[in-house]
Amino acid sequence: MVDVINLADKLTKFDDLWSPRVIAGINNYQVKLVKVAGEFVWHQHDDTDELFLVVKGELMIDFEGETICLKAGEMVVVPRGVRHRPRAEEECHILLLEPEGLVNTGDAGGALTADNDVWI
Amino acid sequence: MVDVINLADKLTKFDDLWSPRVIAGINNYQVKLVKVAGEFVWHQHDDTDELFLVVKGELMIDFEGETICLKAGEMVVVPRGVRHRPRAEEECHILLLEPEGLVNTGDAGGALTADNDVWI
Repeated sequence: MVDVINLADKLTKFDDLWSPRVIAGINNYQVKLVKVAGEFVWHQHDDTDELFLVVKGELMIDFEGETICLKAGEMVVVPRGVRHRPRAEEECHILLLEPEGLVNTGDAGGALTADNDVWI
Repeated sequence: MVDVINLADKLTKFDDLWSPRVIAGINNYQVKLVKVAGEFVWHQHDDTDELFLVVKGELMIDFEGETICLKAGEMVVVPRGVRHRPRAEEECHILLLEPEGLVNTGDAGGALTADNDVWI
C-alpha cells in the first residue's frame, strides 16, 4: 500500500541532465531527483522557496555576490525571489523539494526548461 | 546569506530520541531530523501526508496489515489519515518533511509528544 522509494534505484532510471524526475508527492509538494553537470541558467522563483539536497557529487550555487558549495549530505533552501545559478564541475545528483508545477528555469525560461511532473 | 545545512553536523547537536529538531523551513513546511529507537505510538495525521527519509540505520513502519522496512537512502510518504507506528530495533536517524506545527504523535498524544518548532 505504501511504497518504499530507494534513491539509488531511482537514480538508475534516467541519465539526462537538468531534467527533474518526480519520485514522491507530499500534499501539494513534490520530491524530485535531478542529475546536473555544467552551468544552469540564472533564474529565480518569485512564489516559492526551493530545497536542494545533494545526494552525490558537489553542487555549486551562485548567488549575486556569493557562491556556495554543497557536498553529499548537505542541503540549502533558496528563498523565494533570490536569483541563483546552480552548476557542477562533474555530474552531481540532487534531491529537490518544491511545490507541484514549479518550472525548473523559473522566470528565465529557455532551452533548459524541462517537462514538468515526469514521474519515475 | 544562504546557509549550507550539513545533516551529519546537525545530528551531532542532539541525542534524545523521538524528539524532532527543525533544520530548515521551506514555505510553510519544515525539514526535521529525529533519532529513534524502540517503538513509537500508533497514530495518524488526518490533515497531512508525512515524509520519512532514513539517513542512518533501519526504520520499520507498521501499518494495519503491513510492515515496511526502510534502510539509509530509502524514503516513504505516509498518506494522511493512515494509521502507522514507527519503530527501530537499533538507533536510527531520519529526515522528516511535514507542514509547520505538526504534532509528532498525531491524534494519539501521550508521553512521546515532543515540543514543536525546536530548531538546531
